[in-house]
Amino acid sequence: MKRELDAELVRSALEAGDLERVAQLLRGVPAADAADFMANVPAEDAPRVLRLLEGEQRAEVFGYLEPADQVRLSENMPRRELARLFEAMSHDERADLFQSLEPEQRRELLPGLAHAEREDLRRLSSYPEGTAGSIMTSDYAVLAPEQTAAEALEALRLSAPDAETIYQAYVVDGARQLLGTLSLRDLFLARPERRVRDLMQREVIDGRADEPTEEVARRIARYDLLALPILDDAGTLVGIVTYDDAMDVAEEAATEDFYKSANVGKLTGGVKRAKLHELYRKRVPWLLLLVFGNLFSGAGLALFEGLLARHVALIFFLPLLVGSAGNAGSQAATLMVRALATGEAALSDWLFLLGREVAVAGALGLSMALAVAGLGWARGGAELALVISTTMVLVVLFGGLVGTALPFLFSRFRLDPASASGPLVTTLADVSGVLIYLSLANWLLAGP
Amino acid sequence: MKRELDAELVRSALEAGDLERVAQLLRGVPAADAADFMANVPAEDAPRVLRLLEGEQRAEVFGYLEPADQVRLSENMPRRELARLFEAMSHDERADLFQSLEPEQRRELLPGLAHAEREDLRRLSSYPEGTAGSIMTSDYAVLAPEQTAAEALEALRLSAPDAETIYQAYVVDGARQLLGTLSLRDLFLARPERRVRDLMQREVIDGRADEPTEEVARRIARYDLLALPILDDAGTLVGIVTYDDAMDVAEEAATEDFYKSANVGKLTGGVKRAKLHELYRKRVPWLLLLVFGNLFSGAGLALFEGLLARHVALIFFLPLLVGSAGNAGSQAATLMVRALATGEAALSDWLFLLGREVAVAGALGLSMALAVAGLGWARGGAELALVISTTMVLVVLFGGLVGTALPFLFSRFRLDPASASGPLVTTLADVSGVLIYLSLANWLLAGP
Repeated sequence: MKRELDAELVRSALEAGDLERVAQLLRGVPAADAADFMANVPAEDAPRVLRLLEGEQRAEVFGYLEPADQVRLSENMPRRELARLFEAMSHDERADLFQSLEPEQRRELLPGLAHAEREDLRRLSSYPEGTAGSIMTSDYAVLAPEQTAAEALEALRLSAPDAETIYQAYVVDGARQLLGTLSLRDLFLARPERRVRDLMQREVIDGRADEPTEEVARRIARYDLLALPILDDAGTLVGIVTYDDAMDVAEEAATEDFYKSANVGKLTGGVKRAKLHELYRKRVPWLLLLVFGNLFSGAGLALFEGLLARHVALIFFLPLLVGSAGNAGSQAATLMVRALATGEAALSDWLFLLGREVAVAGALGLSMALAVAGLGWARGGAELALVISTTMVLVVLFGGLVGTALPFLFSRFRLDPASASGPLVTTLADVSGVLIYLSLANWLLAGP
Repeated sequence: MKRELDAELVRSALEAGDLERVAQLLRGVPAADAADFMANVPAEDAPRVLRLLEGEQRAEVFGYLEPADQVRLSENMPRRELARLFEAMSHDERADLFQSLEPEQRRELLPGLAHAEREDLRRLSSYPEGTAGSIMTSDYAVLAPEQTAAEALEALRLSAPDAETIYQAYVVDGARQLLGTLSLRDLFLARPERRVRDLMQREVIDGRADEPTEEVARRIARYDLLALPILDDAGTLVGIVTYDDAMDVAEEAATEDFYKSANVGKLTGGVKRAKLHELYRKRVPWLLLLVFGNLFSGAGLALFEGLLARHVALIFFLPLLVGSAGNAGSQAATLMVRALATGEAALSDWLFLLGREVAVAGALGLSMALAVAGLGWARGGAELALVISTTMVLVVLFGGLVGTALPFLFSRFRLDPASASGPLVTTLADVSGVLIYLSLANWLLAGP
């Protein structure tokens, strides 16, 4: 069974100063759990706790911490200790930390690394955030095409302690051009004298260092890969992205899309650990913007003040009609945003999907018109029933079409389609709902 | 480079009846791409195309198809051919297909399998959909604790052709109780005479066959596992869930949550391939339900008809105030739903997070009140400004609190918190927004 970490127990041992007990409790605990605990230890105690972990576990737990926590910890750590930890970290995590450090700390750390490692670090940290280059690692196993299977197995054994994965190896030529891939499984099953060149898979699914992380993650999921080789513009192998990083990317991307659908900005460390002022800052701009969007609805209503005063029954149906437009719109937008995000739909599908939405939203509008027509009759006779049901068909259709089109339009102009869902669609549907409803009422209910 | 599949080219070769050319174009194409193509081939041609693929690729491509497409294809296939394909499929995919088949087809397929395989199939298909048991596979590699490293390597080599993964092996005793796990990497680095018992990892992160798939997928992502061993109630190893299936589960779960946040039901095959009537059926019930929710807002307005007639300026601010309540509410709900879905927040955090929301939503409400107070003044003097700004603070606070509390409440009563986000929160916020606004106006604007 997995060793469960009893955070309360560790904390009280820590407070009692019983470091031996703390070490014993942390030993063998999965790194993700130990890192969760570390993130909540007071900054001045954290280096002491980290020091209790053995070499490899220490670097692993440190690697699991959020960059902000790593920086906080590193500020309370003697320079030599940080340098040792830094050297033991995996290449991609090290590059992420390096980017978060102050220039001064960076200068202190560099001399501790070998020349090749320094170059590697500089290269890995040169890719902008959000690109495949920024999440790839350079700890991968390479093979040469002329090696025999026996030699290749030995080569993988030698790279096993350092490489992120040895289950997938990359076959390169002298100029580090990627020739193919070879899985340990295939190597394992091959006769020892066969050549890597004849065993390797030549048709390689790869990625580019400047591609967005989401696309690389999606490719890993689609083709069930353990890792995706990343090439630069010249076709040179520069790193790999592993499936576990792809999982994190996919989860973060989904979270970001969720937030966008409710007009919340990206949070750095999750909602529970975010500072209150960060939560405020990520929510207030859009709320204010939508206030001004809703002013148009208000202005629309003000435009028809006279009509509303004459036919007060119209007010009763206002939230219902306007709300239905918004609800149909946000349904359609969500379907499109998600289809674009998972790669199920492409930009070129817009016309096909818009055509289908005409049918679906039309049918939805008719059903809902039937549902409310009787109510309109009861409160204002045949004329009102006609106004209400016609409006319902029109606003649901309009909401559905706006909800379908907007994500594609955003995507077309290289904006994130996720920003098009939720409140933006709802607000657009609201404004147009008010105008459609009251214009129609004004026209149909106008006395002779 | 990856072989890109040119669907147009294959299709025209298929139409011209040039099967050799079709076979040539499909050879070496990644299974996911070939399956995408297959899904769009007319039902009567599909078996012919599938037959063009070689043994292993054939089963793999077939495995990548959606169950509905598999069934459609299997209906057009001679029984013996289907039986052969069925035998070559991986155990988990075979069990999924088996569950989708008609009883008659099932009876035809069973005799073709060996007794042990039949038992295995029956067991795998006995777990209800949505549980870890329903996505696990029984193709895993086992080791015995007394084996030496050399023997274990040989055992893995033997299971390599069939096992879903040999990179992670499971150490079991005679009663198939899970004793530990051993990675091929560690085995590879060990001296040949060492015993599996001494090399294996005893602290295993595992799952239960009756756990929800999302939880199992989340554990795989959190601990960066290649596969998670699944135990039954007695602690016996019954299967493994691999990281690639976990990725699919995570993506589907996020899609479902997205849909729920916009009140769209679960679609079987994605929005592009869904039938129009399916799209209609998944959207109409909630829209109708929300119509009735909005009737309460309408009734609230009708209640204050007299007030609205006397102070027509109130109508102008209605969409703005009601919309702000809904927007703040859906922000809060989305934050909570996602935190609960990713495991960042637990049910027990509700009070802490509600307390924070009081502060954040309070600050948001004040900011927005300031933004609209001037507008109120301009349109109706100090009294209206007071009504507008007080209402704004109250409705934003109320929306935020409902949005925060509802997901926890749903979760507490074992409903999916995702159903609490989006339109439900918005509708609740709307109704209460109308009542708060007009009650307050009625009280403050009442003449002497």
